[in-house]
Amino acid sequence: MSGSTFGNIFKISTWGESHGKAMGVVIDGCPAGVYICEDDIQKELDKRKPNNSKYATKRAEEDKVIIMSGIFEGKTTGTPISLIVHNKDYISKDYTNIKDIYRPSHADFTYDRKYGFRDYRGGGRASARETVARVCAGAIAKKILTDLGINILAYTSSVGNIKLKNIDLSYINENPLKMPCKEAVKEATTFLDNLIKEHNSIGGTAHCEIDGLKAGIGEPVFEKLDAMLSMAIMSIGATKGIEFGLGFLASEKKASEYNDIFYNHKNKIDKKTNNSGGILGGISDSSKITINIAFKPTPSISIPQNTINTNLENENIVIKGRHDPFIVPRAIPIIESMVAITLLDYILINTTKKIECIKYAYLNF
Amino acid sequence: MSGSTFGNIFKISTWGESHGKAMGVVIDGCPAGVYICEDDIQKELDKRKPNNSKYATKRAEEDKVIIMSGIFEGKTTGTPISLIVHNKDYISKDYTNIKDIYRPSHADFTYDRKYGFRDYRGGGRASARETVARVCAGAIAKKILTDLGINILAYTSSVGNIKLKNIDLSYINENPLKMPCKEAVKEATTFLDNLIKEHNSIGGTAHCEIDGLKAGIGEPVFEKLDAMLSMAIMSIGATKGIEFGLGFLASEKKASEYNDIFYNHKNKIDKKTNNSGGILGGISDSSKITINIAFKPTPSISIPQNTINTNLENENIVIKGRHDPFIVPRAIPIIESMVAITLLDYILINTTKKIECIKYAYLNF
Amino acid sequence: MSGSTFGNIFKISTWGESHGKAMGVVIDGCPAGVYICEDDIQKELDKRKPNNSKYATKRAEEDKVIIMSGIFEGKTTGTPISLIVHNKDYISKDYTNIKDIYRPSHADFTYDRKYGFRDYRGGGRASARETVARVCAGAIAKKILTDLGINILAYTSSVGNIKLKNIDLSYINENPLKMPCKEAVKEATTFLDNLIKEHNSIGGTAHCEIDGLKAGIGEPVFEKLDAMLSMAIMSIGATKGIEFGLGFLASEKKASEYNDIFYNHKNKIDKKTNNSGGILGGISDSSKITINIAFKPTPSISIPQNTINTNLENENIVIKGRHDPFIVPRAIPIIESMVAITLLDYILINTTKKIECIKYAYLNF
Amino acid sequence: MSGSTFGNIFKISTWGESHGKAMGVVIDGCPAGVYICEDDIQKELDKRKPNNSKYATKRAEEDKVIIMSGIFEGKTTGTPISLIVHNKDYISKDYTNIKDIYRPSHADFTYDRKYGFRDYRGGGRASARETVARVCAGAIAKKILTDLGINILAYTSSVGNIKLKNIDLSYINENPLKMPCKEAVKEATTFLDNLIKEHNSIGGTAHCEIDGLKAGIGEPVFEKLDAMLSMAIMSIGATKGIEFGLGFLASEKKASEYNDIFYNHKNKIDKKTNNSGGILGGISDSSKITINIAFKPTPSISIPQNTINTNLENENIVIKGRHDPFIVPRAIPIIESMVAITLLDYILINTTKKIECIKYAYLNF
Repeated sequence: MSGSTFGNIFKISTWGESHGKAMGVVIDGCPAGVYICEDDIQKELDKRKPNNSKYATKRAEEDKVIIMSGIFEGKTTGTPISLIVHNKDYISKDYTNIKDIYRPSHADFTYDRKYGFRDYRGGGRASARETVARVCAGAIAKKILTDLGINILAYTSSVGNIKLKNIDLSYINENPLKMPCKEAVKEATTFLDNLIKEHNSIGGTAHCEIDGLKAGIGEPVFEKLDAMLSMAIMSIGATKGIEFGLGFLASEKKASEYNDIFYNHKNKIDKKTNNSGGILGGISDSSKITINIAFKPTPSISIPQNTINTNLENENIVIKGRHDPFIVPRAIPIIESMVAITLLDYILINTTKKIECIKYAYLNF
Repeated sequence: MSGSTFGNIFKISTWGESHGKAMGVVIDGCPAGVYICEDDIQKELDKRKPNNSKYATKRAEEDKVIIMSGIFEGKTTGTPISLIVHNKDYISKDYTNIKDIYRPSHADFTYDRKYGFRDYRGGGRASARETVARVCAGAIAKKILTDLGINILAYTSSVGNIKLKNIDLSYINENPLKMPCKEAVKEATTFLDNLIKEHNSIGGTAHCEIDGLKAGIGEPVFEKLDAMLSMAIMSIGATKGIEFGLGFLASEKKASEYNDIFYNHKNKIDKKTNNSGGILGGISDSSKITINIAFKPTPSISIPQNTINTNLENENIVIKGRHDPFIVPRAIPIIESMVAITLLDYILINTTKKIECIKYAYLNF
Repeated sequence: MSGSTFGNIFKISTWGESHGKAMGVVIDGCPAGVYICEDDIQKELDKRKPNNSKYATKRAEEDKVIIMSGIFEGKTTGTPISLIVHNKDYISKDYTNIKDIYRPSHADFTYDRKYGFRDYRGGGRASARETVARVCAGAIAKKILTDLGINILAYTSSVGNIKLKNIDLSYINENPLKMPCKEAVKEATTFLDNLIKEHNSIGGTAHCEIDGLKAGIGEPVFEKLDAMLSMAIMSIGATKGIEFGLGFLASEKKASEYNDIFYNHKNKIDKKTNNSGGILGGISDSSKITINIAFKPTPSISIPQNTINTNLENENIVIKGRHDPFIVPRAIPIIESMVAITLLDYILINTTKKIECIKYAYLNF
Repeated sequence: MSGSTFGNIFKISTWGESHGKAMGVVIDGCPAGVYICEDDIQKELDKRKPNNSKYATKRAEEDKVIIMSGIFEGKTTGTPISLIVHNKDYISKDYTNIKDIYRPSHADFTYDRKYGFRDYRGGGRASARETVARVCAGAIAKKILTDLGINILAYTSSVGNIKLKNIDLSYINENPLKMPCKEAVKEATTFLDNLIKEHNSIGGTAHCEIDGLKAGIGEPVFEKLDAMLSMAIMSIGATKGIEFGLGFLASEKKASEYNDIFYNHKNKIDKKTNNSGGILGGISDSSKITINIAFKPTPSISIPQNTINTNLENENIVIKGRHDPFIVPRAIPIIESMVAITLLDYILINTTKKIECIKYAYLNF
């Protein structure tokens, strides 16, 4: 309704502005009995940090999470989990010069129109810093999913038009670009070094895979699993497109080429191909779920740009502050978090769909 | 939660199976005082019908809508509007032979796993016939939007790899493919005629534009307008991808090429380009919202296919029944409906976002 | 949000006006695999009918329920269940004389102010006829609860100031007043016969008990089981008060008198008293849940009353139509229905509260 | 769904345990442009404090609220408002002796059954300390309502069976019992002094009035204003009953006595009586809304009580800690808060109910 709440049963409410006191999230609906400590969350949060990468913002937040409620004797109590990350390294004066200016391809203008005014410090609530809270909540969801045998993996699949030549998953965490391909990383590194010199930024794509999810997750009609994952992922800033399985390429296929043929593989159902990307009729089919996501270039660049101010007068702007020339690597843990939160929520929902399951649960737990 | 309810304030709940008694929708939250009659809805519903197109199913439903509640003296009363379309031309025997078989790329298997069994008659709830209810609700949303000066237009933008050569919007309703390009239609016609002969089907893409929406619609963070439209559209069967503005192409651009430059156009804010597709920070910016959607080929084909049955034994299947070799033209009114419902819902939500507006409304209405 | 939707997982949306075509309900979220037929629902619906009682309206609706969707081969499919009851015996001309008049203690005035106009035929959506849909949905909830060993029983506990002298539950269905006391019924019969002669109506109270509910149902803080039951029951027209356990009498007690003492009863926890009425901290404690509900007299009487019309001019009104001199007996199945729907919903919700339960459910169902 | 979230548009999520680090609330959906500072909230919070009253707990929390987000340049931004109150004066060792014991009439047992274990420190999430967060959110709602001309007033209306003799509203804040009657206060003071000596506690009632609410607020059928206020108020710990207008007394009335007669009062609609308590058909009618609420005695007393432990063995318990012999005065600001949050939410909802209002809002704000 108002945008900062997500999920049905595993419901998260995030808060905080880029240059406010802190970022936070309240999770209402995490099952009781899950072992969670601050380190579990910190580990994921650290993946989101720029970590001195030259391709990322110079803002160096410590991003230390504090558990404020909902955990007792190391376990979730079933009541709200409140997590806070204090903001420390913000420099609000960076932004006073853009107080009255609408930065191109930023949300300045639309927030002003929506609310009548805006918190202009660092983009306020529209800043990518908001995703700190998503990663905090995602860390808990991920831990539960891992325990259920479900793994989520995202990586950078292109930098501008530099694509992967081959895929070596073990290389993802060996490079600041989070790309699973040494050759592509080399090419992209040269490209990005030049880009930084020209004070520009570039778009890119990410790929995400979900492995180990059993069949039956996702709801029919409006809450199809792909629909909900689309909402979840497209809610991340800078995303401009999403596709599942063959995606846009599927639009060029005949059914005789596209249809995934079921067969009996060691007494379990399997598919000869996975063009559909693991979802049929909006419900998981137990094969790998595969997703591609397109990101636009980050709009904040230090190249002079024309724009207008709040009085609609012409202005020429050079955006200062500390920004990311290539945002995709930092979006990777956020994609994983949003996918984890969505999956967990629909797994919880699915628990209530068969009367036999409900009877068993009511009588035994 | 359970999939068949959509929307926050303008909330719709749909029901009905392909071969059940009827399809229906209950709308709870339509504002009072809107003039609506059955013809307003019938007009949109007729666009969804196969209309003897050789590229669409031979099932010839009359699809006559009945208003069951919520309208009095020609106007919406503010209480639930119930709409029903009775099913008439269904031939359930067509499906008894697939009762125990999992059709490739259909939802048979996933529904079975989710619920323990399934209504196999014509796909049951997973059938595209479910969209009748979406179009009924969409017709009402559209009428309200039109009155607010907002227009939604969708059309077929490719058939397999046959793309538009040029765009002539006046041609959309002059051809059964709903393509705005005479040349492309000609090419596609030849292609589809051959396709029908080989009992195959083909994917395609649709384009959708929203014109006249003022700035400020959409909520921050999770309920960004593009996120909600993605959910809405990706919930339509057979969709495999969605993109806004430049979409996937944005991933190859530098910010210096991509950023849309604001300028003062006759004392109103305007943008030199619209690469972002009318949404900034998840909120409408008053320029045209542009969306591309990818559809896979309809999976039901009469070419023999291997598959397995519910006992995991090999089967060879030839799908009978009456199906669509090219689904995109019939998806056009459904896209428009889902977009209309989503926009109206977020316009209603936005009514509650400024205290000045609330005060005025409380004191004057 | 708009009032006609209730529940979280077992979510119902009702529709229909007193003098419209039909009353209906869509249930989205009923678990799959529940055996339900029209007779199961009809049985409950028949309890709501006036059944020629002289204490109830002369409107003689057949109230025949039709299952429109969601049941296949005798079982719920997990997708929306649509139920319809056609209206037949309505006489709309009865109401044209009150088109412009605000009947005392009716909703005519408030609906007009809320929506700008109203469906004046028989009270439109504000009519008690709306509860037909609640009983339809309640019948399904009740069947599931019965199967879990949970029983809900409601009865009339007073007519005006005629109270129960003793309680004989077997007598409830032996008298049209649904009172478990022969002596009170005798007294009330004389009283009501006189009341009918003076064209008046009288208030009364109902009592409701829930037996067999295990401990742990209900959510903390805002969604306490007593809070949700209060909302559910207070949403029934004509209710003016509700209390649990000792209720208002608890306000006169000391803790040393009031506190329910736990003890070990045959190796199970039990309480020496049940002053709290089966709910502690908003969560069921496995003892009987006891509820008292107050109903005002039905406002429609044939005694002349002063009032004003829509132009605020004085009017004298004699309300014609067919009304209930004593409404409580007809509210009994509605109370039971609302309690059943609420309990089932919170039992479904509770299924997702322990991680061990979720793991078991995910891996085994 | 999980209990700690309340409201539709003005949605609040609370968190925190009695002996945890802090109590907090996130409000997502507060309109933009409302002037709010910490003092506005602190003022309400201070009303909830025991303030050295001998009738209230000796726990002396400073209860200092901190605004963490959502306010910029003194005004709400339309994005989430996060409020925190740090816990300071908690003595967790007080509770280790009850770690394995189920205190009579407390939530210890039910939380254990629901979640498998519980935070036993001071009642954890089930503690009345949870209401700190409600008052924080309520303060903001109240400020908005005041600005719309709506006033909410609650007071203690009885202590045990000591009732009000007369009503002098100006006396409410002149006595620690928050009673509007000098004579009753005198009598109650003697009674409570004796009660404290015997280490006991007593129940009581509160009365709440809403003045200045225009007609039309509240939704039909399930979300009637009285139903929603019942849920809101019955969610406060220790409540056992609620009634509107004449309440339970209405059950003894004939319609000819009960019906409120409309008349033209200075060209506005008015009622000769207000037996219905300001709500007709679930919608406000512009007269005063009147509510009575019953509270049980606080269960924590220092008189020895029998009970059992988690092994179902007999125990004799004397509850230490710092508790309230009479809770109603401290519940007063909480009642007002819950009423304010509910009213504001339904005022926001009502903004979307007339098409003329929506058009005006869309085109002008």
